[in-house]
Amino acid sequence: MKEYTLVKNAAGRMVPDKVNGENVIPYQGVGKYKPSQRKYSRSIPSCADYPEDGNKQVGSLKEALIKSGLKDGMTISTHHHFRNGDLLANQIFDIAKELGIKDLRWFPSASFPCHEHLIQYLEDGTISHIEGSMNGPLGRFASVGKMKKMAVLRSHGGRYQSVQDGEVHIDIAVIGASSADSFGNANGVYGKSASGLLGFALADSEYADRVIVVTDNMVPFPCVPWQIQGNNVDFTVEMEQVGIPEKIISGTTQITSSPDRLLLAELTARFCEAAGIIQPGFSFQAGAGGTSLAVGEYFRKIMREKGIKARFARGGSNKYLVSMLEEGLVDYILDGQTFDLDGVRSMAENKGHVWTSPFTSYNYHSKGNFAGIVDVVILGATEIDVNFNGNVVTHSDGYLLHGIGGWQNCLFSKTVIIPVPLFRDRIPVIRDEVTTLCGPGELIDVIVTERGIAINPLRTDLIEATRNSGLPIRTIQELKEEAEQICGIPEKPNLGEEVIAVIKWVDGTIIDAVRRVIV
Amino acid sequence: MKEYTLVKNAAGRMVPDKVNGENVIPYQGVGKYKPSQRKYSRSIPSCADYPEDGNKQVGSLKEALIKSGLKDGMTISTHHHFRNGDLLANQIFDIAKELGIKDLRWFPSASFPCHEHLIQYLEDGTISHIEGSMNGPLGRFASVGKMKKMAVLRSHGGRYQSVQDGEVHIDIAVIGASSADSFGNANGVYGKSASGLLGFALADSEYADRVIVVTDNMVPFPCVPWQIQGNNVDFTVEMEQVGIPEKIISGTTQITSSPDRLLLAELTARFCEAAGIIQPGFSFQAGAGGTSLAVGEYFRKIMREKGIKARFARGGSNKYLVSMLEEGLVDYILDGQTFDLDGVRSMAENKGHVWTSPFTSYNYHSKGNFAGIVDVVILGATEIDVNFNGNVVTHSDGYLLHGIGGWQNCLFSKTVIIPVPLFRDRIPVIRDEVTTLCGPGELIDVIVTERGIAINPLRTDLIEATRNSGLPIRTIQELKEEAEQICGIPEKPNLGEEVIAVIKWVDGTIIDAVRRVIV
Repeated sequence: MKEYTLVKNAAGRMVPDKVNGENVIPYQGVGKYKPSQRKYSRSIPSCADYPEDGNKQVGSLKEALIKSGLKDGMTISTHHHFRNGDLLANQIFDIAKELGIKDLRWFPSASFPCHEHLIQYLEDGTISHIEGSMNGPLGRFASVGKMKKMAVLRSHGGRYQSVQDGEVHIDIAVIGASSADSFGNANGVYGKSASGLLGFALADSEYADRVIVVTDNMVPFPCVPWQIQGNNVDFTVEMEQVGIPEKIISGTTQITSSPDRLLLAELTARFCEAAGIIQPGFSFQAGAGGTSLAVGEYFRKIMREKGIKARFARGGSNKYLVSMLEEGLVDYILDGQTFDLDGVRSMAENKGHVWTSPFTSYNYHSKGNFAGIVDVVILGATEIDVNFNGNVVTHSDGYLLHGIGGWQNCLFSKTVIIPVPLFRDRIPVIRDEVTTLCGPGELIDVIVTERGIAINPLRTDLIEATRNSGLPIRTIQELKEEAEQICGIPEKPNLGEEVIAVIKWVDGTIIDAVRRVIV
Repeated sequence: MKEYTLVKNAAGRMVPDKVNGENVIPYQGVGKYKPSQRKYSRSIPSCADYPEDGNKQVGSLKEALIKSGLKDGMTISTHHHFRNGDLLANQIFDIAKELGIKDLRWFPSASFPCHEHLIQYLEDGTISHIEGSMNGPLGRFASVGKMKKMAVLRSHGGRYQSVQDGEVHIDIAVIGASSADSFGNANGVYGKSASGLLGFALADSEYADRVIVVTDNMVPFPCVPWQIQGNNVDFTVEMEQVGIPEKIISGTTQITSSPDRLLLAELTARFCEAAGIIQPGFSFQAGAGGTSLAVGEYFRKIMREKGIKARFARGGSNKYLVSMLEEGLVDYILDGQTFDLDGVRSMAENKGHVWTSPFTSYNYHSKGNFAGIVDVVILGATEIDVNFNGNVVTHSDGYLLHGIGGWQNCLFSKTVIIPVPLFRDRIPVIRDEVTTLCGPGELIDVIVTERGIAINPLRTDLIEATRNSGLPIRTIQELKEEAEQICGIPEKPNLGEEVIAVIKWVDGTIIDAVRRVIV
């Protein structure tokens, strides 16, 4: 099944022309590939086939899976709003194993270390392969060529796109929810397993043949807000516990205390100030990592000093962002996932804290999405190359250990800034060429390191605006050379020829392939 | 184009096999017709074809229509949330006329007397015909056979179903909104033309080729709540005024003061009490007409006395329902349209006041909708027959003067009660046979008149529960005869053979046909 021919895509990368037996399209450049087909359309259901009183509850997840027609070769989807506290995905495949089902494709919006349990099923053929971001053990398993089929990694927006476009047909979607009613309306806002929202399951609910909602908090109809609409749901299940609360969301999010990372954050914020990005009505997105949180705090300081209010902040939300909303420094948080208890509370209480989905925020195959409206986005990367290309999925040793998340989608923001240390564990971050290409350099504007800031030559406006800022502006080549002077020229990873995973671009084309690590 | 053969459907009605050249399916009975095709799917758009910064605003409605490719024979849709205060639909066809466009199909969710302006365009061929509820002058125009093509009337849910299923392909949807941003996110909650919500435009936004959002209140991105999602929108337009506020919503809603109608309301409420329907956690839907409002007030009285709280009330909302929500007598209002200022205010302020759409509430071609979850619904009718069949679109003289609204969809409620006077203007309401069949008698449970209550023989449970209630329970035959003793046997309307309109059932089949009135 790993049969393919390698072709060179528009980024110069050699990528397979077939993935698991299906033809795929090589990357053609930003905005170049135009879909010519129609959206996937589901067969038309009839209310006549559903309970008259709206009660779709069945006795167990197993019963729901059987009634959904679980069989060999199906695609089963889950969402990752429960993050490392997810208790559902493992159960689904335990049931599949018990029933003797084989060759399932697991289509999670992301996997986490808690899903290491599933390696046994990848080994025994219950699961043929995973299409979805793999964080940790599963990525390591795939990296050394042990997964039977090729992995496919997509951005959050790309996952929505792939389902909408019919690239991935979901047979059964299992949607865990911290609140639901027996009709299938569900949300992540209330209940002991609250995760804030369920946006990553939206496509699944809309396009899967069968949709199962599982909750540990069944409430009388109506369960509102209905982030997942019962009108798309086939069966509902109540169980004791769908997730481990303290692993779903952290009680507290903490800003980095590392002086190096604080410096990155400060330089990033100062750059934004100097470039005139921080102005009344602006918008920003910073992640929930320690450095990003610190950037937000520097923003807050600047905004307070200058009396500037942002129109919106794009979340991942956390207590820092929530306090900016509550302080009136931002009008809205447009939130894709909540990272701590304050985020969940705020989403429940505050009309300015809006839950979004990969459709509204990130789907490239729509009539616009709001990633492009965000003035500045602060992202991370495992590697950046001298052409500003970015890698977020593999380490420099070739191991595929991270998902793409919303990273690719966010590149369409008006200004993309990536603060990274010049080296990690004495391995330079800025390279001649990224090990895996996830995002083309033309969309990445600024690299901030502790030893200088490199601006993409395409952004003459930013170069001009910060010329006399006193900031340590340097070329990316200079930064790379400085890192190499300190750490030496990095070694190439020891990779085989075999493609173990492909990286999809936001339009469904193949931007790069990941090779097997030779151990 | 009025070529067809009449066939007898499962209700015994003679209906055309073709409507405006397209084959249609005769009604087959409740829950009998099962769709075998797939949902309509729109061609896949790409963000690459939309403005990078999300700003889709163009200078005028005319410009937006031209850019949308307006041409002969297209289908143009609008919603009716602005009710009789709508200023948009007339403008659209003024522009079409100016551009010399012909043969447009207008696909409103309903039309109002304010749209009488469009009769000139029906006459000169700018508009070929209307598919949508026609209230007033347009209905009168169509009734006498003046419309060039056949009208098609659908319920709110049926309209969603027809678009979803691809029965009606919308070329251009024009969505008026009291608030919007330049990206196309829109709502009806805020702004001078606030109508509460925009649910009737949801299908249009999801399935039309081109979507234009027009507002008189352009706000900076993000316009939230985004009842219409900008990701589905092609162009946005700002204009001075999209509607006449006092005609969009009334400043005050008033309960009937007519002793006859108050009696109907009281009998209805007493029946519900006797039948055990008013119990903790129950749900109800009463409309915004004077009698229905009075039923709600009687419910309130009973609920207060007995300490009963409802789980939800299905709106059309108004100040009475809002005060029940605020008093804590209902947990939620699930609202399809707001009828007064209190409704709009409540929807903006109260998390328990939930906006819905014909998808969540009424679409029969889904995996359930919530109409069936409602315990009791109070509806109106122009005629009821001795088999409990109901008519809501024509008067007994044959004139087509009303739309179906949500009436057909609501028939799936657990108990359907229709309070009607025994006669109106000395014309009996209860007949041997309804002039036009809109809802089959098997779904209509109770007819309440000022001279007695008739229970559908199918509902032995209700007959049993109210046997010793002291309520004036009678047979429907008795009620019909009493009316005829007072008013005489009603004359038959003077109708021609020609079918001027068809009535769709909730599943898209043809339940009846409306004949031309001979004048």
